[in-house]
Amino acid sequence: MSISTRTESPESARQPEAGSGRPGRFRRMLASPELSFAMEAHDGLSARIAQAEGFRALWASGLSISTAMGLRDNNEASWSQFLQVVELMADATSVPIVVDGDSGHGNFNSARRFFRKAEQVGAAAVSLEDKIFPKMNSFVGTEHELAPAEEFCAKIRACKDSQQDPEFCLIARTESLIAGVGMREAIDRAEQYRLAGADAIFIHSKKQVSDEIVEFSQEWGERLPLVIAPTTYAATTPTDIFRRCGISTVIWANHSMRAAFAAIRQTCREIRDTESVSHLETLAPLSNVFDLLDYDELERAESRFFTDHPMNG
Amino acid sequence: MSISTRTESPESARQPEAGSGRPGRFRRMLASPELSFAMEAHDGLSARIAQAEGFRALWASGLSISTAMGLRDNNEASWSQFLQVVELMADATSVPIVVDGDSGHGNFNSARRFFRKAEQVGAAAVSLEDKIFPKMNSFVGTEHELAPAEEFCAKIRACKDSQQDPEFCLIARTESLIAGVGMREAIDRAEQYRLAGADAIFIHSKKQVSDEIVEFSQEWGERLPLVIAPTTYAATTPTDIFRRCGISTVIWANHSMRAAFAAIRQTCREIRDTESVSHLETLAPLSNVFDLLDYDELERAESRFFTDHPMNG
Amino acid sequence: MSISTRTESPESARQPEAGSGRPGRFRRMLASPELSFAMEAHDGLSARIAQAEGFRALWASGLSISTAMGLRDNNEASWSQFLQVVELMADATSVPIVVDGDSGHGNFNSARRFFRKAEQVGAAAVSLEDKIFPKMNSFVGTEHELAPAEEFCAKIRACKDSQQDPEFCLIARTESLIAGVGMREAIDRAEQYRLAGADAIFIHSKKQVSDEIVEFSQEWGERLPLVIAPTTYAATTPTDIFRRCGISTVIWANHSMRAAFAAIRQTCREIRDTESVSHLETLAPLSNVFDLLDYDELERAESRFFTDHPMNG
Amino acid sequence: MSISTRTESPESARQPEAGSGRPGRFRRMLASPELSFAMEAHDGLSARIAQAEGFRALWASGLSISTAMGLRDNNEASWSQFLQVVELMADATSVPIVVDGDSGHGNFNSARRFFRKAEQVGAAAVSLEDKIFPKMNSFVGTEHELAPAEEFCAKIRACKDSQQDPEFCLIARTESLIAGVGMREAIDRAEQYRLAGADAIFIHSKKQVSDEIVEFSQEWGERLPLVIAPTTYAATTPTDIFRRCGISTVIWANHSMRAAFAAIRQTCREIRDTESVSHLETLAPLSNVFDLLDYDELERAESRFFTDHPMNG
Repeated sequence: MSISTRTESPESARQPEAGSGRPGRFRRMLASPELSFAMEAHDGLSARIAQAEGFRALWASGLSISTAMGLRDNNEASWSQFLQVVELMADATSVPIVVDGDSGHGNFNSARRFFRKAEQVGAAAVSLEDKIFPKMNSFVGTEHELAPAEEFCAKIRACKDSQQDPEFCLIARTESLIAGVGMREAIDRAEQYRLAGADAIFIHSKKQVSDEIVEFSQEWGERLPLVIAPTTYAATTPTDIFRRCGISTVIWANHSMRAAFAAIRQTCREIRDTESVSHLETLAPLSNVFDLLDYDELERAESRFFTDHPMNG
Repeated sequence: MSISTRTESPESARQPEAGSGRPGRFRRMLASPELSFAMEAHDGLSARIAQAEGFRALWASGLSISTAMGLRDNNEASWSQFLQVVELMADATSVPIVVDGDSGHGNFNSARRFFRKAEQVGAAAVSLEDKIFPKMNSFVGTEHELAPAEEFCAKIRACKDSQQDPEFCLIARTESLIAGVGMREAIDRAEQYRLAGADAIFIHSKKQVSDEIVEFSQEWGERLPLVIAPTTYAATTPTDIFRRCGISTVIWANHSMRAAFAAIRQTCREIRDTESVSHLETLAPLSNVFDLLDYDELERAESRFFTDHPMNG
Repeated sequence: MSISTRTESPESARQPEAGSGRPGRFRRMLASPELSFAMEAHDGLSARIAQAEGFRALWASGLSISTAMGLRDNNEASWSQFLQVVELMADATSVPIVVDGDSGHGNFNSARRFFRKAEQVGAAAVSLEDKIFPKMNSFVGTEHELAPAEEFCAKIRACKDSQQDPEFCLIARTESLIAGVGMREAIDRAEQYRLAGADAIFIHSKKQVSDEIVEFSQEWGERLPLVIAPTTYAATTPTDIFRRCGISTVIWANHSMRAAFAAIRQTCREIRDTESVSHLETLAPLSNVFDLLDYDELERAESRFFTDHPMNG
Repeated sequence: MSISTRTESPESARQPEAGSGRPGRFRRMLASPELSFAMEAHDGLSARIAQAEGFRALWASGLSISTAMGLRDNNEASWSQFLQVVELMADATSVPIVVDGDSGHGNFNSARRFFRKAEQVGAAAVSLEDKIFPKMNSFVGTEHELAPAEEFCAKIRACKDSQQDPEFCLIARTESLIAGVGMREAIDRAEQYRLAGADAIFIHSKKQVSDEIVEFSQEWGERLPLVIAPTTYAATTPTDIFRRCGISTVIWANHSMRAAFAAIRQTCREIRDTESVSHLETLAPLSNVFDLLDYDELERAESRFFTDHPMNG
């Protein structure tokens, strides 16, 4: 037979080197001494824009994706519906994507299945939080029930056991400070999650100031990289504070969605009031859309693939 | 047995009167002498915002939904992926939704299956255009191949034959003016589509001025309601012109998506440049999100359903 | 405008009479003094075959659908993946389908969303069981944790509050006898579920004999119709026993899947052993497939829709 | 930071060697001088059974998967719905899966997107056929329109250009003999497809005898491996004939589905007639289901992950 087994096929150049994929790049970002930023995205478009504007990592936010779907951040979307959005985001970009895995969508088995599928659709990491299922958004209401630490550790172990690419990361997020159980518990849980195999700790706070984050980071030291989402305390906290605290990664957790929300509302309002679009100055022209999504590639591809010459000739 | 067959159940009040559903409301809007407006939406959030701002109909745009998915308006999304978005839009709103059905996703059988499923997920109408599959966005490139009129009429007949609710509407969109085949062909095709059972005609133009639309509407008269999407000629055409032409419905076809695009890009840019979110003034606060999606309802529902009193007592 | 608002449209004949849809037919079947049977199906094909062979109701089994998907009956499939299968079953048939809703896929909000979506894809009823999430198949292992009765009643109320068609049914399934908490608890829970709004009670047992079922039905009387799935005790219990107990509906809960399992295995084995298919006598010919799925309709439809005559002329 | 970049992580042992994945194994199977067999499967269960019974490759049949979904083999399922089934099959097995890609679901861009996604969900190869979209099953009707060869070659080039793993295979299937255009055209097209980059040729015939296949294989020689699906001519053709013709792979294309069809029908019929399941002897016991799907693993995993010892300790 003339088929080669391709041990030296020219395409093999396409095979990624170990660690050059998104999980490896994200792992190195986590380990780097520099402060990194992950920009929220909630669909293929916002993901593509964030990458085009220079962000080197994306946050597939549960709140923002739910909101874009018209659903509440209460696991109203099924885990498979959620991952369909993540898949579109991954297909639209090449930078690492950190997936908001909420509380893991059930028990340890649910969590590892979600984790494995997130890897398959192209994510670089999953963040899991120590709440029960269904979870409620951390900024809604005052009651946030924590899952028992041993249950959450079992989820971490189950996930880490199921990944294919060894670089794929699990970020363990503790909601201890959100639930009001105190700094001691927060540190204790983080340490248990580290021992269970987490690759980073996401410490969450909903105070208007960053004192909890500063205190946690000092206590924690360098045991594992720290991830934060300064939604409530960013306004009062210069970013250099995060650098001084040794934070690894700042997640801008919902800002693209909130920008879209305000802009769409304003546009609807103006069009409704004026029955016209002629005065709207804040819309991207369609040419921006066609450029960002590379419509020209279709034409180039067509002429390339319709030539007679074999691709591998 | 104690189960009643409920011929007089108190819930039957919930059964909608004939014509009070979305298809019936849209049909009346089409038939009304007043000019109506349908606002583009591309996900559950933009749909909900448009409704909240007072729009009485929505346009589930192929271009905008593709773009939000990070895909090109070239039928890169499968028809079932597309309808999943429409379903979320319908679940998030109560106003009629007109679904962009492109060229029907294949042959007459593909078209009627799409049509029937669009009705099932809660749409009020489907717009089908007389191009081949996969279609290319009308504003991209200069070559737009029309499907043979008899093939398109077969699709119209197949769709109209498959609907459940007799109020559900099919809008036949001719791309004759986009394809450059002339006004005569546009009118001829529209007439054939009317005879095949279309409920309205969507006449599309990509000129910077509205002369083609004006001419078409004068020729056409009142044979069927006319729908337009003045993306390219709105800037030069006061909306009253459309009223004078007897247009039934204006679709603002991609403006929410373009507003989101520009706002997300601007927000990404500023955050990237400043490494901060504290100065951003154009974001909706999270409370707007929680209000629009009625997070309070969860708490109300919980206390209601956890009482001991039976619902039907 | 020439579009009519169709208050007297000829198509309105197509609008179903109240109660003539699947939910209404199933409700009448539940209320009927005759013993009814629901046949398990796990995909569009098995649903269509069961209907063709004369079954007047189908059971969309969690175990069988999971198994067909290659997954375990432990909520490994997401609720939306599960409903995609139910949708295909509904599209392939016209008889009522009872959907296995497991424990409701989360809390009261998860349950009512599942319930509402099951109705939308065409089901006639949903059965919910009083276990926790994720549930484990009742025939696996010996530990089966019951949900608190008040939590389960909240789910029942939430579901019944969310349906569109008043005929749509909720079957409350108690796993009290599976969990080994005793007959008293089984009756008590069933009564609470009745008061919360359930339309029928599904009493489950995994004994090899039917004594539990007989005892339950005698205690219960005619408070609500009773549903059973005699998977383990059918071999020892003549069907007339169920009639004498006043059972409303017998579910043959997994028998199509088990027939397919054995037949596929046998066929694989023979083909593997003989490297040939020529001796296989137990395969349906392809013509059976083409007949059951009505391939001829495509041709008929094509010639019908490609005629020049308008459908509504 | 304590996070390692894991250049020497113990898990890296898990990283597959080049070519050890499914695509590599299938490529070697194609190239091998031995006759190989691929067994049809249409869902996770039939895939798992076929693997358990010893098949070293699976055929994800368009006809069988459509039929299981209750749909016709006329591209009634969307490409994304179809790939969801393939994903379940891949998740349930470890042997290579050849995906029936029909005519590529549209143009060259549709085809490469399908091809790339089939690879992502875990397939080893895609077979594309030179018909138009939507395709009709080759055994239905007598009119089968071939796509222009240059269009089909463009699809082949586009697909081969888009794969990630260089081992992933494209099987070019010509329907020339089905369409009745003659042996010359069949050979010519196969040669063009080879030059365009196909990894194997699938030559299809619906005659009751294998003379066309024998003739084709003699003309073709060893230019590329040959694949056949002897649905109609297997009864008259000893398998050794295929060996003598130098065929690489025989696909048993629909036999599991037809076995399930017959068994489900027979079971429904008997249950319907007898109102009983007690006499049915051909059902797999539930224990077979629990064994094949490894329910025990859940318990083992639970005790493993709930220990205190870190996984990586």
